[in-house]
Amino acid sequence: MPEGASFPLTKVNKVKRRHDRGRYDKATVYNILDAAVICHIAYVIDGRPYNTPTAFWREGDHLYWHGSSASQMIKAQREGLPVCLTVAHLDALVMARSGFHHSVNYRAVMAWGTAHAITANAEKPRLMDNFIDRIYPGRSKLIRQPTAQELKATTLMGMEIETASGKIRNTHVSDDEEDYANVPAWSAMIPVTQVLGTPAPCPRSLPEVAMPAEMAPFKEGARLDEVMSQAYAATFGRG
Amino acid sequence: MPEGASFPLTKVNKVKRRHDRGRYDKATVYNILDAAVICHIAYVIDGRPYNTPTAFWREGDHLYWHGSSASQMIKAQREGLPVCLTVAHLDALVMARSGFHHSVNYRAVMAWGTAHAITANAEKPRLMDNFIDRIYPGRSKLIRQPTAQELKATTLMGMEIETASGKIRNTHVSDDEEDYANVPAWSAMIPVTQVLGTPAPCPRSLPEVAMPAEMAPFKEGARLDEVMSQAYAATFGRG
Repeated sequence: MPEGASFPLTKVNKVKRRHDRGRYDKATVYNILDAAVICHIAYVIDGRPYNTPTAFWREGDHLYWHGSSASQMIKAQREGLPVCLTVAHLDALVMARSGFHHSVNYRAVMAWGTAHAITANAEKPRLMDNFIDRIYPGRSKLIRQPTAQELKATTLMGMEIETASGKIRNTHVSDDEEDYANVPAWSAMIPVTQVLGTPAPCPRSLPEVAMPAEMAPFKEGARLDEVMSQAYAATFGRG
Repeated sequence: MPEGASFPLTKVNKVKRRHDRGRYDKATVYNILDAAVICHIAYVIDGRPYNTPTAFWREGDHLYWHGSSASQMIKAQREGLPVCLTVAHLDALVMARSGFHHSVNYRAVMAWGTAHAITANAEKPRLMDNFIDRIYPGRSKLIRQPTAQELKATTLMGMEIETASGKIRNTHVSDDEEDYANVPAWSAMIPVTQVLGTPAPCPRSLPEVAMPAEMAPFKEGARLDEVMSQAYAATFGRG
């Protein structure tokens, strides 16, 4: 699928309710994904759904995550299993004059594909480095390299995005026309952001080790989604 | 299940990997749930997993959410469908001296049950009020009551928690012993919190309408998880 393209509408990815909020262009879908550290992955074992929150990242039309080779999720997914990987950023609480119009602002993506373990030995270390660098640009060069035992204990999972959709609400209070004048309830949009606190260095840090320049954006009060989008662009480039 | 009890360990809810992080006592599981506005619900349609982020709340051993009666999720779930409802609070990024020990701090819950529509006409308005009040204590008394059409257009979903587990990581950097001295990589725990911004009143607010006293905790910089836990306790009591 070329850059600039959209995900074709299918029965699976079509946003039925509030279809005005649906987004299918890759640029929007990928921006929402690349601003996040954590996704939720839905999968099925013995007919029962499971829903595991985990860190992930994107490269092109592929999504990656990892887990212990001993974990139930990894064991279920490694031979190929349909999954739905979802990211949601909560952006505001929206208090309206009726219960019906109470809402939240959000940016969300649902992406479907078939998860499988990345078994190519040559690919795995490079992808694991990307996983670190996607969050902390340049960090994979500063840390100890993985041992054979660590690589064996970690399973890297990936999927091609077969289809996906985004959904966004980013408007203010929206009430029924007659309620604005008739309902004296205080109504407001309350922004919600995920922010960083002051980094707490490891108490066992060596005295000569200073914070690398690449970590400058990780400062108190910075928005996690913005820091992650910048880190993503710094590591993989934009677009 | 009496208060103070735990969810029995089963094949489904047992935390296999990092089982030291597993939590099965109801108090811990419910505190994690009650600090959240948004969950992710996994369910299966035609063998394919879906994963929908949505607002939810808990009453006793039941979880509730809602949706448009026309939505695909609601149509699939209303007659009874197994779901896994997950909540995850991201609490910190943890940068270690090896990729293997990079981690995040989090509080997460996975809860399994069978979703069904709440069709009892008497229960529905009360539960919808609770949905509002759980976030904004006392608000259901201040707003316009739902119309018959609104109630019809909204399907209220519920499930009894059949089993659940919590998982928590809340520690600092933890590296292999030899790496502390030998790897000169700056390592740190960076706190992450979800905070409120300054409430933006609806531009069409009536001049005489002031912010209710119950909204005082919703102030700039307040932690959403703390505000939600307090709101929950104010509406439903503690424990």
